[in-house]
Amino acid sequence: MKFYDCQPAPSPRRIRICIAEKGLDIPVVQVDLRNGEHLGEAFRKINPQCTVPVLETREGEHLWESVAIYRYLEEIQPDPPLMGTTPLEKAMVTQWDHRIEIEGFYAVAEALRNTAKGMRNRAITGPENYPQIPELAERGRKRAVTFLRVLDDRLGHSRYVAGDFYSVADITGLVVVDFAGWIKLDISEGYPNLKRWHDEVSARPSAKL
Amino acid sequence: MKFYDCQPAPSPRRIRICIAEKGLDIPVVQVDLRNGEHLGEAFRKINPQCTVPVLETREGEHLWESVAIYRYLEEIQPDPPLMGTTPLEKAMVTQWDHRIEIEGFYAVAEALRNTAKGMRNRAITGPENYPQIPELAERGRKRAVTFLRVLDDRLGHSRYVAGDFYSVADITGLVVVDFAGWIKLDISEGYPNLKRWHDEVSARPSAKL
Repeated sequence: MKFYDCQPAPSPRRIRICIAEKGLDIPVVQVDLRNGEHLGEAFRKINPQCTVPVLETREGEHLWESVAIYRYLEEIQPDPPLMGTTPLEKAMVTQWDHRIEIEGFYAVAEALRNTAKGMRNRAITGPENYPQIPELAERGRKRAVTFLRVLDDRLGHSRYVAGDFYSVADITGLVVVDFAGWIKLDISEGYPNLKRWHDEVSARPSAKL
Repeated sequence: MKFYDCQPAPSPRRIRICIAEKGLDIPVVQVDLRNGEHLGEAFRKINPQCTVPVLETREGEHLWESVAIYRYLEEIQPDPPLMGTTPLEKAMVTQWDHRIEIEGFYAVAEALRNTAKGMRNRAITGPENYPQIPELAERGRKRAVTFLRVLDDRLGHSRYVAGDFYSVADITGLVVVDFAGWIKLDISEGYPNLKRWHDEVSARPSAKL
């Protein structure tokens, strides 16, 4: 197996943390996003979507959606379980992980990618160029704030995101809350439940990655 | 269990087909989206996101993300498997189902919701109102076309979306290709692989639902 990573980027951090929580040892290749290595011919053969993370599986296939990599790692290394154990737990992990990605991650990314000077014409990741849409940046920011409220409310009723157990939904949540800091959204005041949870999950050794 | 459905809407169709393929018999409640039942107080208690599909599980919890409902149904009724059987198959189903939702479904929805007269201020589903962004409609249409090309290419190498087996990725794919018809994207010419596959999956009894 091989894990294509890029140290400062948020999406591959999901996989870095997951690999550490599973206690797996997978060789890492750093991809130089700053210099556009992900858009070059060589990397396109690995992932035509031009994104990291990518996992080269034992079978030699390339997975480049974080949810698919989570699934693969859970299947080949079920212990410790990070995607729930009962049917309902498994569904709740899927639901929250998905929500966090769609309502949280994409909202922050929209706010960031539609304003950053270095991302002109790169409003969406991938091989195609798309111009920035200023209204979308504004909407993304508003949606990101709404989502932090939703997560704060959820964590007022639940120790971890998907229930009383740590899961990939917490990993994705941690990554998104820290990513929200990139657009200056700060949870240290006004989000008591989110802060309590963020302190707890950030204290795990895997969170340093 | 209980399944909250709305007959003409695309997302709940994913669940209608999945339930039929699993041979499950789950009581159905029709939600009247046209008259705004999903935005009313009673339905908000079932799903604060104000969307269908919703599955009330055996434990009495409500799941309202299609991927979470797929997962739950796969766990309680593993036969026939619709999410792969090996680790790699499971990961490929997850990857393609996710891609189709993000790159296909959301692109078509963006094109539709940002132009339809009846959807002013409803550019995103959910409890919050968001105004339409015309540039986003245009971008959504372009992305939807790009995605149909990606899927056509994929199906030139694979009988079904995730491999040589039928899965929820085919269900989501079928729903998205038919949904693309709502914005007048037609695959009957110029997409030979997609058409071959669409004819095959559309011939299954579940596809009539």
